[in-house]
Parts: sequence; C-alpha cells; structure tokens
Amino acid sequence: MRLLLINPNTTQTMTDLMVREAGKLLSPGTELKAVSGRFGGRYVSSRATYAIAGHAALDAYAEHGADVDAVALACFGDPALLALKEIAHQPVVGMAEASCLTAAAMGGRFAIVTGGERWGPMLREFVALMGMSERLAFVQTVAPTGADIAREPERALGLLADACRACVTEHGADSVILGGAGLAGLATRISDKVPVPLIDGLAACVRMAEHLARTGAGKAKVGSYARTPPVESVGLGKPLARLLADS
Amino acid sequence: MRLLLINPNTTQTMTDLMVREAGKLLSPGTELKAVSGRFGGRYVSSRATYAIAGHAALDAYAEHGADVDAVALACFGDPALLALKEIAHQPVVGMAEASCLTAAAMGGRFAIVTGGERWGPMLREFVALMGMSERLAFVQTVAPTGADIAREPERALGLLADACRACVTEHGADSVILGGAGLAGLATRISDKVPVPLIDGLAACVRMAEHLARTGAGKAKVGSYARTPPVESVGLGKPLARLLADS
Amino acid sequence: MRLLLINPNTTQTMTDLMVREAGKLLSPGTELKAVSGRFGGRYVSSRATYAIAGHAALDAYAEHGADVDAVALACFGDPALLALKEIAHQPVVGMAEASCLTAAAMGGRFAIVTGGERWGPMLREFVALMGMSERLAFVQTVAPTGADIAREPERALGLLADACRACVTEHGADSVILGGAGLAGLATRISDKVPVPLIDGLAACVRMAEHLARTGAGKAKVGSYARTPPVESVGLGKPLARLLADS
Amino acid sequence: MRLLLINPNTTQTMTDLMVREAGKLLSPGTELKAVSGRFGGRYVSSRATYAIAGHAALDAYAEHGADVDAVALACFGDPALLALKEIAHQPVVGMAEASCLTAAAMGGRFAIVTGGERWGPMLREFVALMGMSERLAFVQTVAPTGADIAREPERALGLLADACRACVTEHGADSVILGGAGLAGLATRISDKVPVPLIDGLAACVRMAEHLARTGAGKAKVGSYARTPPVESVGLGKPLARLLADS
Amino acid sequence: MRLLLINPNTTQTMTDLMVREAGKLLSPGTELKAVSGRFGGRYVSSRATYAIAGHAALDAYAEHGADVDAVALACFGDPALLALKEIAHQPVVGMAEASCLTAAAMGGRFAIVTGGERWGPMLREFVALMGMSERLAFVQTVAPTGADIAREPERALGLLADACRACVTEHGADSVILGGAGLAGLATRISDKVPVPLIDGLAACVRMAEHLARTGAGKAKVGSYARTPPVESVGLGKPLARLLADS
Amino acid sequence: MRLLLINPNTTQTMTDLMVREAGKLLSPGTELKAVSGRFGGRYVSSRATYAIAGHAALDAYAEHGADVDAVALACFGDPALLALKEIAHQPVVGMAEASCLTAAAMGGRFAIVTGGERWGPMLREFVALMGMSERLAFVQTVAPTGADIAREPERALGLLADACRACVTEHGADSVILGGAGLAGLATRISDKVPVPLIDGLAACVRMAEHLARTGAGKAKVGSYARTPPVESVGLGKPLARLLADS
Repeated sequence: MRLLLINPNTTQTMTDLMVREAGKLLSPGTELKAVSGRFGGRYVSSRATYAIAGHAALDAYAEHGADVDAVALACFGDPALLALKEIAHQPVVGMAEASCLTAAAMGGRFAIVTGGERWGPMLREFVALMGMSERLAFVQTVAPTGADIAREPERALGLLADACRACVTEHGADSVILGGAGLAGLATRISDKVPVPLIDGLAACVRMAEHLARTGAGKAKVGSYARTPPVESVGLGKPLARLLADS
Repeated sequence: MRLLLINPNTTQTMTDLMVREAGKLLSPGTELKAVSGRFGGRYVSSRATYAIAGHAALDAYAEHGADVDAVALACFGDPALLALKEIAHQPVVGMAEASCLTAAAMGGRFAIVTGGERWGPMLREFVALMGMSERLAFVQTVAPTGADIAREPERALGLLADACRACVTEHGADSVILGGAGLAGLATRISDKVPVPLIDGLAACVRMAEHLARTGAGKAKVGSYARTPPVESVGLGKPLARLLADS
Repeated sequence: MRLLLINPNTTQTMTDLMVREAGKLLSPGTELKAVSGRFGGRYVSSRATYAIAGHAALDAYAEHGADVDAVALACFGDPALLALKEIAHQPVVGMAEASCLTAAAMGGRFAIVTGGERWGPMLREFVALMGMSERLAFVQTVAPTGADIAREPERALGLLADACRACVTEHGADSVILGGAGLAGLATRISDKVPVPLIDGLAACVRMAEHLARTGAGKAKVGSYARTPPVESVGLGKPLARLLADS
Repeated sequence: MRLLLINPNTTQTMTDLMVREAGKLLSPGTELKAVSGRFGGRYVSSRATYAIAGHAALDAYAEHGADVDAVALACFGDPALLALKEIAHQPVVGMAEASCLTAAAMGGRFAIVTGGERWGPMLREFVALMGMSERLAFVQTVAPTGADIAREPERALGLLADACRACVTEHGADSVILGGAGLAGLATRISDKVPVPLIDGLAACVRMAEHLARTGAGKAKVGSYARTPPVESVGLGKPLARLLADS
Repeated sequence: MRLLLINPNTTQTMTDLMVREAGKLLSPGTELKAVSGRFGGRYVSSRATYAIAGHAALDAYAEHGADVDAVALACFGDPALLALKEIAHQPVVGMAEASCLTAAAMGGRFAIVTGGERWGPMLREFVALMGMSERLAFVQTVAPTGADIAREPERALGLLADACRACVTEHGADSVILGGAGLAGLATRISDKVPVPLIDGLAACVRMAEHLARTGAGKAKVGSYARTPPVESVGLGKPLARLLADS
Repeated sequence: MRLLLINPNTTQTMTDLMVREAGKLLSPGTELKAVSGRFGGRYVSSRATYAIAGHAALDAYAEHGADVDAVALACFGDPALLALKEIAHQPVVGMAEASCLTAAAMGGRFAIVTGGERWGPMLREFVALMGMSERLAFVQTVAPTGADIAREPERALGLLADACRACVTEHGADSVILGGAGLAGLATRISDKVPVPLIDGLAACVRMAEHLARTGAGKAKVGSYARTPPVESVGLGKPLARLLADS
C-alpha cells in the first residue's frame, strides 16, 4: 500500500519529523511518500494561512497523487479536506478528522490539545463542519505554535500534559487528542500523566488512511464527492490546472 | 493481536458466518475469537430483544474477554455498546459505530441499509446517541430480517442494491453502509451497482477494532468510561457477577 | 385503577420504601402492585448495571404486567424505558421521564439532583434521548448512591439541599428534580430551602402514570411502539420468553 | 381543587363548549371556573390575533385568578404562556404544552392536527420554544378553523381522521394530538380510525393542570418565573394594572 | 424614505431620546415618524409587560403605519415582531433583530449587554426564535433597567463598559451589542474601552430598516407572512380592529 | 465611502457585469473599486475551485484593500470569507452572507436559488457555518452555471422563476435569494412571478457593505478576528506576503 502524506505548510523540517514518526507506525508493506506545500505560510495558525494552505494541499495532490492508495492530509485542522475528497481518486483523510473519529470510538466526549492560540475557534468550527460538536468537550490551545513545539519538544511536554489533564478535570473529556504536525510522537511521552485515552494525531491519521485504503470502497460517481466537470483556469501550477481541466 | 467478536444474539450460524467473512479481512497476525449470546432472542429486531441482547453482550464479555486486545460488538445497532466500553479493559467498537465512523471519513452524509423494518427508528436513535445525526442521510430498511437474508442471500441482493441506490438518488447519500451481521460479505457483491462508496459493516467493525487496538490508547482511569466501584448482584452468570464485584 | 411499579434493581427494601411513599400520593381508587428485579445489581449506578436492569425490567413486566392500567418504571434513569413502551399493552412511564415532563411544565430549564456520581453523563444522555437537552440546566450528582441515601436519609438532607440550591444559583435552573428511588419522599423535607419548584421523582412518576392511564389513548398498532412479530428465544425467564413469542 | 380555564379568544360559545367537555374529565372534587378574553379576535389563527390574545389572557388571569389552584390556558398554541407562568401565583399549563408533554410520554415522535392553515408555522415555533422539536413529527392543519369545526363538528370528523392517519403513514408519527379549543371532545369519536394513541388537547390540558396542582411544587422565588418588581402602567384593565403594580 | 419607529412601551421620554439619537444616523432624505405605545407598562422588563407591549406595537402600527416605507420596532427584545411582519404592508425590523444580524456580519459570536436583569433568559429565547443561538456568546444584563440608564447615563457608562469587556474576556465574544432603547447613543462613548466591534442597537435598527426599504422586496403573498383572512374582534382600538377586519 | 468588490474567480466579464449592476444600487457618494482573482478557475462551482478562490480573494485584498471602507466578497458562497474578516482592516461581507442576513429579516425561512448543480451541498454547509441552518428552507440549484446564465440571461429567466416558485410551494420558503455573480440584476425581472420577497444577492451584498461601513464598529483587537502575529511565507504574491508578514 502506498500513502501520500501532504504537509500543506511550507516547512520541510515539519514534514521530515512526520515522516520519521510515521515510520514507526506503518503496517508492514505500507510505503509513505511525503510532500510539503509549494507556497504559503511557514506554519498555519490563522484563518488566512489556513485558506492558502488549502490551495497548497490541492496543488501538492495534483503533482504527487497519481499512484497512491490513500492520502493523509497532515495539518491538524485539515485545510481543503473536503475539496481533496472531491478531487482525489483515492480516499483522503485529514489529521484532525482521523483524530476525532478515533477519539469518538473511545466513548463519550473528546478534547483537543494543540499549539497556537488562534486554533481554538478554528478547530471548533472544523468539528462543527464534521457534524461532531456534541462529542467535543473542549479545545485547549497552548501558546507555543506547533512549529515552536517541534523545535523544542522537551520544553513543551509539561505544558501539554497540564493542558490534557485540565481537559479531563475541568471539561469532563473522556479522551484527549494531541493534535498538530509539530506534536507528532509526543503522546506516548505524556500518556502516563493523562488519566484518559490519549490520541496521537499523526498516528490516527496514518492508520485511518490505511484503514480507508483497505475498505476498497471506491470513488463516488455521483454527488458532492464525485469528480467535477472540467473547468479552465489561469495562473495555477500546471498539474493542478491539468487536474481541473481533466476532472 | 487477538480480537473478541461478540454476537449478542443467540444464533450460532450467524456467528459462524461472521467468522468466515472476518477471516478474509484480518491483518496477518490477528486472531479472532467469536462468541454468541447465551440467552435472548434468536435475532434482534425490536427494542425488547435489543435490551436483552445488551445484557447478553456483557455476559459474553465477562466470560470470554480476559485476554484479548480489542472487542468487536458484532450486532448492527450495538446493544450495550457504552456499557461494554465502561466495563471492558480493552477498546470496544460496535458494528454500527465502526460503520458510521468509517462512512463519515468518505465525506458528506451516509445512509444505512439493513434488514428488519423495526430497525429504522432504533438506528436513527443510535446515530443520535453517537452525536452524528447531521451526517446521517437516511436509514432504509428492507422487509427481510438479517436472519432471513443470511439464509438466502441470493434472493436479497437485488433488493439491497435497489435500497442502496434509493438512498443515493432520493436522499442524497454520499456513502452507504450495508449493516447487519446477516449481511456480512454482501457489500462486495453489489458495490458495482451503487454509485457511491459502499461500507461493509463487518469489515468496518473488524478493521476499526484492529485500528483501536494499535492505538494503545489505554483504559480511562476517571470519568464515565473508567471501571466502576464494585457492586453486588443476584441472579447473574458467574463471570459477570464476578466482573461487577471486582470492578 | 391498577398501577404496576417496577423497581428494576434487586433491593427489595428500596421497593418497599417506594410503596410506602407512593401510598401517600395515589388518587382514591388507585391500587399499586410493586415488584423488584429478579436479577442484576443491588443498585444501578453504572452503565453495566443499567443495561442489565433493562433486561430485568422487561422480565418483571412479563411476569406481573397482565392486568394493570399503567406501568411506572421506578428507577431514575429508566432502564429499557422504550423497550417497555414497545412491549407493554398499557402506557408506561419512567421516573426520570415523568420528572422531566413535569419539570418542563414549570417553565424554563430544570436541573436534576441525584445520588451516585456515575449518573451524571448517563442522565445527560437520557435527557438527550428524550430530545429535551435544551430544557436541561444541569445534572448535579452527590457522592452517596441512592441506596446510601435511602439507608440514612437524615445525613443526606443538607447535602441534597445544597446541591439543589447550587443548581439554581450557579446553573440558572428554574426548577429542580430530586431523582432516584432512594430519595423518594425527601423533596417535601427540603423544598423550603430551595427557591424554585422542587419535583419529587416518585410523585411525578406515579401521578404521570395515573394521568396516562386516564387518557385511554390506546396502544399503537403501527410503528416503533406497536407490538413486534413473534420471536423465539433461549435462556430467558418463561414469562418473558412467552411474551416475545406471542407478541 | 379549583382550576381556572382561560379561553383567550372572545367567543363565549367556545368557552362553553370547553366547559361542557371538561366536565366529563375532571377528577371528583375539582371545580372549574372558565373565562373568555375581554378583547381581541373572535378566534385566533394569525400571528396578530395571537399576540393580542396573549394580553387578553393576562387580563383575564388578573381578574379571575385569585383563588385557584392551577390555571389551564385553553387556546391551542398557548398565547402568553410563559408570561402567565411568570405572573401567576399558581402552576399554569397551556393546551398545546400539556398535549406535547403527554404525547411525549407515548414514546417516539408526535404529530399535531388542528384547524386553521396559519397555525402550521406558529405551532412549529411553539414546539421549538418548548425545546421539543426533535419529538415533533409533523403539524398537519386542515382548512376549516377551530371555530368552523366547533360549529359543525360532524362535517369535520372525516377530514380530521384522514389528517391524523396521514401523520402516521406519511410522517411516521407515533402519536397524534388533536389540538384546538374547537376540537374538544372529538378525539374519542375518531380514535378507532387512527392506528396510534390520539391525544385530546383539552383533556391533556385539564388533567395536566390537576397533576401540577397536586405536585404542590410552589412558586419560583428567583429566576425568570419569579414575580417581577412592581411596574407602573397606563391604559390597562384595572386588575392587570394592579397585578403589575403589586408584583 | 419614511420610517415609522414604534416604541411599544409607554414612556414618551424614551421615544424622544430615540428620535434625537436616530436623527444623527439617518441617510439624507429619510424622514422618521415615532410613536409610543398607548397602553402597557412604563418600561418592558418582564414577560408580562413584554406580552402587553406586543399588543401595543400592533395597535400603534394600525394607527400610524399607513404611508411609511419600513417599520423599526424599537424595543430591544422586539415584542410581537413576527406579528408585525405578518400584518404590515412594509418591511419591519426589530431592534434586537437588526442588532443580531449586524453583529453576525462581524464574524464569530456576539454578546448582548442590556439593562434589566429579567432580560437574560428572554433575550436568549429571542435569539433562539431567530435560529441564531449558535452565534450568541452570552447575554450580560446589568441591574439598572434601560429606563434607569436613560435617566442617568453618566452613572451607567462604567458599568456598561465593564459588562462589555467581560463578554469578550470571559465568554469569547467577537462583537458586542449594546441593546435597549434607553442605551441609544451610548455605544460611541464606550467603544474605545471595548476591544471588539460594538454595535449600537438603535443605529443597527434604523439603518437596517433603511436597508430593507431599499431592497424593494415586496410583501409576501402566500405563507406565514402574507396578510391573513379578515377576522372580527371586540374591545380593540378602532384602527387595529379595522386592520384585522380588512386584512 | 469607498467599497472594494472582490470577484474571486478569474472571469473579468463577470466582474464587469457586477460593476454595471452595482452602479444602479449604490448610495450617493459611494465609490466602487472592483477586482477579479489573479489565478484560479474561470468560475467556481466545485469544492476545489472554491478552495483556490479563497486564496485568490486574499491575494486580491492584499493588493487592492488599502484605502477602502468596506469589502464586498462577490462570489455567492463566499470563499475565504472568515479569513478576509480576519486579515482585513475594514468590515467584510460576502454575497451569500449578506443575502442570508437580509432574507432573515423578512421573517421565517429563506430559500436559495443559484446556478451550478454542485453548489447545493456547499451552500448548505456555508449556511451551517453561519449558524443559520434553522432559517434555511431549501437550496435549489439549476443546471446552468452562473457563467452560463450571465452569458444568456434571457434563456434562464423562466427556469429561475420556476425554481423560485418551487421553493415556496414545495419547501415553504418565506423569501427567496437569487444568488450568484452571474445572476446579478435578474431578481427585478422575475420578482412579479415569485409570491414572496425575492432578494438579489449583489444588491444585498453591496448595501450590507455600506451598512457595515456606516456602523463604524471598528476592527477587533482580540480574538479570532483580530490581526494575527506576523508569519513568513514562500511563493505568494508580494502584497499578500507583505500583509502576512506585517499583520
């Protein structure tokens, strides 16, 4: 099985970190191809950089998505997730999406802990878009961005563990998601300090991508997730322009 | 990895069918142990038999759940799902739950097709309990029960394909779940007649159980899904009485 | 008029307490028959004992429900309430259900105070199943279980009054339900300490059962609350097996 | 026990009809006092006459509400229901409110059948205000108004029975409310033609008023349903002006 | 363009204040006619005075609404708003309605700050009736009523600014509405103390009325906001009686 | 007052059409500056072109947004609306947003009629994101896209009028929005064929932009719509890169 991991921001070290961590998680026989965004913010933690990252994710898919079995959109918050599901020939799953679906299976309500204070309302809106707001106990952001945390994870561990515990004791979370590309791999290091199941965003994303690839469920031929009629465009990267013109 | 599949009704041939079909789906290295309910209706398609099946599922877990890595509650509608999540030491996933979570990852809204006319409102209530009603396009039941379909699958294939297509054309479903123990394995036989992704309930359940086992997310130590204080009981099967007394 | 009160846990002293208290409430001419569960936990304050109590409630109805005019399911949280409504020939009302409907008529939002810390999320889910979450201000549990309170009510009165007042001052409740078999009769003893209408769960349940019996509204002949087609079973109590086979 | 029935429209024959029908329903020892609105539309079937009827209901309560045990607001749609609950010293229940609460206890979703085409959206909004929209299957209005039906009930019986059946077969209602002052007493005449429980609005209202009077739950001393600080007014009926000035 | 401003309470000085403030806001060429209620409470801050004010608003429209282009219902909370929309020949907008729609366009969630403690639940219910509860962050009432504030605005400014800031810091509001006839014009005096957009209720109302008048969208000819069939009445002001009889 | 109209697709003739139509609508003294997207699909009627158009809208604002009083995002569906509200120094309103807010003020539920079949679910999701789903009666798409309709409006008029009427008669709409850049100006030509208020998307957008500019409500200094901390980027247009780096 071949997976394409798209990091829709433009920081290659973040992509490299995720490739390293994902390597520990993949089933035997799964190959991972990873790409970063060609353009956009160094990291995504505002509505504007998020909107740009959506375009970058589509651009990356158009260039690299030809021969994979599933796509993992590896930016917690999942820019252009539904557009990727529409345009891709394969199953696509986002990191926040996979985390929420996995956490939901733990029972009760889940909380999300992530880096970057602007993510709070954006993630609540994302969960609402998924129709899962009833399952969301809280979104707890910590001040350092995911990029900050990736650079100095040791300094963030205590802060993150405190945030996770607060979700449980103050907001009644039955499970906690540790979300964000920059936090990949940290869940296992603090899970003993959190009294409910702790979900690692990258692990949920990669394994859910494998799960979806195995379902063999096929591409919709009608409706909102079928391919669209061809449309001309201007000023786009060639692979994306071609994908739009062919679809 | 060891999975326990609990069929909470009392029809062993249904359990055998699921074991056969699940055999085709398991990852290398996954072992499956399967048990049927000790008591209750031959099949579950009313609120009363559903309530009884919840007790039977707990009874079966108490007797057989000691040394497995995850539990698959394999009756579509998932009797006592939350009670099992509370009492079990391992992750537990129900067939309807796993199907809904998998279908959600296809994007848009999913429909459910299953056998037995009384399941309609019961499944709508189940999806509401999961907090996922916004993602549900429709529940389409066909008259034969799951047990009827398991006995004569050939006769049901056309009926089921028609029901799936109606979910798409009349109710706008972006994916369809073929749910029910008795329908295990039928999705692959009609998927070419359904223009959107078709989810097989048993496959979703077994693979989601594997996914959850791999997360290693651990048992809640506090909250609604932690083990409960010990409670005395009367008139229960010994393993269940012991499990309640120990918990 | 004849009412059947089902206490679906297995503590006869709790049933006796409710019979004593209900005696003060009944209209002239109403007779009360009361039964306890044949099997299950001594008290119900977990998801597992709740699921078992649902089976026990059906079992009790099957044995004792033949010639009554209405059924009062007298365990706050109402295990198998909808299954009883399906299978019974008479109107069935649960203690939590009757309390919520009565409190709703006070205007605004109601709170629930009950014993046993695990009831919090379970009652929130129950109210959601009733479609009345918008009317629920809060569920406040106190640490002693209903069984503890029934044994030593004097010790609990202050604790319960404090909990009721907190629902008003901190959560804006316009009325408060004092719920739980073990709390039967306590509302009148603390109502002068609570500045909003205080609803006694047992009183609401018994009087709502009388109200429903008087409507003479009849059993549904179609739909989700009509009797179901007969189904064979194994391992059940004889009256329940017969009821399923006849229905 | 003394009940005050307020008919907030200005048609005395409608009040008389309700007194006649209510006489068949009251418990031994219950006395009924009934009043019509002093001003307003002859019947209420628009948003404007509804708003005026709310004022008229308060005016009637102020004049006649002194020494009763509960108030029945007997216009289906319940103008100024929450204002009456605020201002009255006793429990107040509306005809639509009582009907919805009673129907809810039948399980599943209820439908409403009433006369006057403009009531459709108004009743959906009323049910939403009660926070019970999830329990509402449908509102089916018939063209004749309640006043028309009261004048010639025989002509309307077939129409009403057809409307009730349509709620069941087309909209999946598990019970049906026959609402409206002008329809008082008709439910018993068509209930054998409707395959689910049929709720008579007036019966639900009067009996729920008795139920609430018996709870002895008391008037809120704080919050949105407590009495308000005194307020001066101009141009109102004297009793209402006095009630506002005293409250 | 001619606007009719209806102040449905009976305090002429409040109407005069609004006329003064509105004069600063109107587009060139807009004329404003303003009327107070003929009957009802001196101010509206309870459910009872609110219900009466609804009737008074209709009465005022009937007398003064003949030749205007739009109607501004200038009591924050908008008594009988939907009835006015039904009965009026022109677009009608309420002060709370216009404020909520304007605040919504700021993005995110809005809070409401107003005078009079009883308005809290009433405004939450109003926002729910508008179907906009998801956009509402909080309703913060201050103890002085709108009438008190209108008499001594200097004393209230600090209190109001504190309340607005609390909505932002404690409840996450992205904008704040300063609502209430008595608070007209105060927003500009405290906006520099509030770190998010501050909406003045009267300004939103008057300008939204101009906006609606300009759309020229016309009166509904069918449905719930079309004129109703004529209805006889008793005891009403002559213009209102005539309007009902003609409609 | 100066408005910036952003057409985030790349068809200049569509922008020109909107400038022509907007000219008829503006208040005296309002100047309109209009820009098209620099890159992206010729028209937007899929999730992918929508995501790209969001980036293009930000890019256009960064280049042209310096000295205007409000921004009108003139693509019905409003790509990157919330990101523009975040990044802009002025009030921003989208065409679909303004239309929904204006239609809401008509009372009851509104429907949307637009061109391009893929818009149906996308617009339902947009309305949900606005938290206004309860007010939405239906989205009716017609097969020709907005671009097709703009080219040959005469051919589409009958189709559009039929679609509007269907929204009223089949889905109970109390008002209808004619949405889409390509449909600008058509509402006045069919409004006499639609029995409820008909809202022109462009008119609602431009006038709401004027309304917001007049409120002078100011930019949020905290929260989700305040400017964000500066972030570096790669591969973006210079003005947008600078705006992100400065913000």
